[in-house]
Amino acid sequence: MRRLIIIYLLLIVFFVIFVYQYQTDDANNREYQQDPLKGEIEETYVMITYQSGMDYWKRQLKGFEDAAESLNVSVEYRGTTHYDTEEMIALVEQIIAKKPAGIAIAPIDKTAINTVINKAVEADIPVVLFDTNAPESNANAFVGTDHYNAGIEAAHQLAKYIDHNGEVAVMKNKNTDQDRERLEGFKVTIEQNYPNIQLVQIENGDGDQTISKEAMIRIIEEFPGLEGVFATETSSGVGVAQAIINTDRIGDTKIISYNIDKQTVDYIDEGVITGTLSQSFWGTGYWSMQLLFHLEHDLLLDNSGVVNIPRYIDTGINVITKENVNNYYMY
Amino acid sequence: MRRLIIIYLLLIVFFVIFVYQYQTDDANNREYQQDPLKGEIEETYVMITYQSGMDYWKRQLKGFEDAAESLNVSVEYRGTTHYDTEEMIALVEQIIAKKPAGIAIAPIDKTAINTVINKAVEADIPVVLFDTNAPESNANAFVGTDHYNAGIEAAHQLAKYIDHNGEVAVMKNKNTDQDRERLEGFKVTIEQNYPNIQLVQIENGDGDQTISKEAMIRIIEEFPGLEGVFATETSSGVGVAQAIINTDRIGDTKIISYNIDKQTVDYIDEGVITGTLSQSFWGTGYWSMQLLFHLEHDLLLDNSGVVNIPRYIDTGINVITKENVNNYYMY
Repeated sequence: MRRLIIIYLLLIVFFVIFVYQYQTDDANNREYQQDPLKGEIEETYVMITYQSGMDYWKRQLKGFEDAAESLNVSVEYRGTTHYDTEEMIALVEQIIAKKPAGIAIAPIDKTAINTVINKAVEADIPVVLFDTNAPESNANAFVGTDHYNAGIEAAHQLAKYIDHNGEVAVMKNKNTDQDRERLEGFKVTIEQNYPNIQLVQIENGDGDQTISKEAMIRIIEEFPGLEGVFATETSSGVGVAQAIINTDRIGDTKIISYNIDKQTVDYIDEGVITGTLSQSFWGTGYWSMQLLFHLEHDLLLDNSGVVNIPRYIDTGINVITKENVNNYYMY
Repeated sequence: MRRLIIIYLLLIVFFVIFVYQYQTDDANNREYQQDPLKGEIEETYVMITYQSGMDYWKRQLKGFEDAAESLNVSVEYRGTTHYDTEEMIALVEQIIAKKPAGIAIAPIDKTAINTVINKAVEADIPVVLFDTNAPESNANAFVGTDHYNAGIEAAHQLAKYIDHNGEVAVMKNKNTDQDRERLEGFKVTIEQNYPNIQLVQIENGDGDQTISKEAMIRIIEEFPGLEGVFATETSSGVGVAQAIINTDRIGDTKIISYNIDKQTVDYIDEGVITGTLSQSFWGTGYWSMQLLFHLEHDLLLDNSGVVNIPRYIDTGINVITKENVNNYYMY
């Protein structure tokens, strides 16, 4: 009889411990939910781009997804089929109607899209622009590369490889804003920081490999001792590289290119192109997601009730040379 | 006998459930630790500034602490007593020796501090600069206000309040880089965006209330219909406000000031100063901490092994007018 009582007591003790355990567990779960950097898995953030097929967006989406995973929220990717402003406006309208937790948009242009961006903001949906800014819109922030600074970095890199000395040229692209900003940053930096470097020619390769190649051959004829070239985008860079191969100046004329494609990676590996600068695609997606989450969860309120929204995150420039080019073969 | 067996079996079942519970709990704990956005409470991030007594740093430290709390890590604040480069270098040396998880520094100047910043980076301690940049150092990133953009915002605000029309003046400060950038952003924006606004005078108030007041009275004598003034910092703004009171132009000449102190808040409340622009102090601290944590925890590695470090976070500008000035009375 006494033994039975002991056993019953033991059973009761176990039961109490069990219930206690259970409740503690529950309390832990609740705390987890109150963690400011954790959302709900039903919370969906949408990334919208033009030309959804392009490889160009893949790493940006990966960064967006990686941040969402850390923050315990969900992601949807939508893109227009073409580079078509009307199609993009219709798509954004559609998505606003679904009331997502936030929208990251790579706008097609700097103005036509503003009305629909503002409509989303008025509907209390956080909007972050990435890749391209639309500064006149009411979007909450912009995440992307500062192309003027990219030009500054290109100047420093090229200067380093030619020992801060000699004649250099630029092979530019079409007259886009981004291209102009890169060129300007490059020019100003060479003029202000490198008195022994002469920028002897700026040629327009029109973003075309063959035009760039032929233009470069003419420049080499005129300046046979040319120490370096800055090519403001990949096709120009590849054209310049082919001219350097043709004129037998591999290693003598250093090339710094901008952005990255398969051919550029190969030429870096072979030592024809010295290096290229790449926007931080992954980081652009990652910080777009982080900002949207912070906006949606009111995490930017300080203790006096003021909302502190960053205006701009410059995701920076990665420098790709022979030493780290292997990381880029997936492009 | 049979009853005893049943009871023993029950006991065994309870025991098994209990052990299982315990292990699940443990697994949950481990998962919590593996949460990428959670650190260890022993992990200490240090914020270093000059003149540690200044109110100026309080909100930046609060943002730093708030981010640390979300990320489950610890914060230490250290500052030099004076505005003294040697003292700051010695302090940073001391902190490097303690091997903290990361350091956020508001450097005294743009060059003298670089050696010790680079020493920290070489010792594998993440370094983020905030408030003031030292662009030639190897610091991982900069978090702060872009003063050129602050000037652009000042121009848009002033233009809005004077209906895009009329004569305006600028009361500038000493020739600091930040002041020059704000002035430049303001000038360029007025010239390019507002053809009906004439910038009739730029006067140097030397950051002094009395000098600014007297200079402003002279400007009003010369341009009695002056519609607006941009004062590039608080003392100039207060001086301009006093001149506007003296010349009986309250509400007729609109004032946009820059930064915030008690007197500016009062004048906004009384309608003498129309508005002022404030750096996002809290956001500067918050994002400095976030970046340091991301660097220390290798969270910026993308799937191809490339580290994507943002170059710069522009924490933006808060516009303070009569409508929201109550939030700023704690200054």
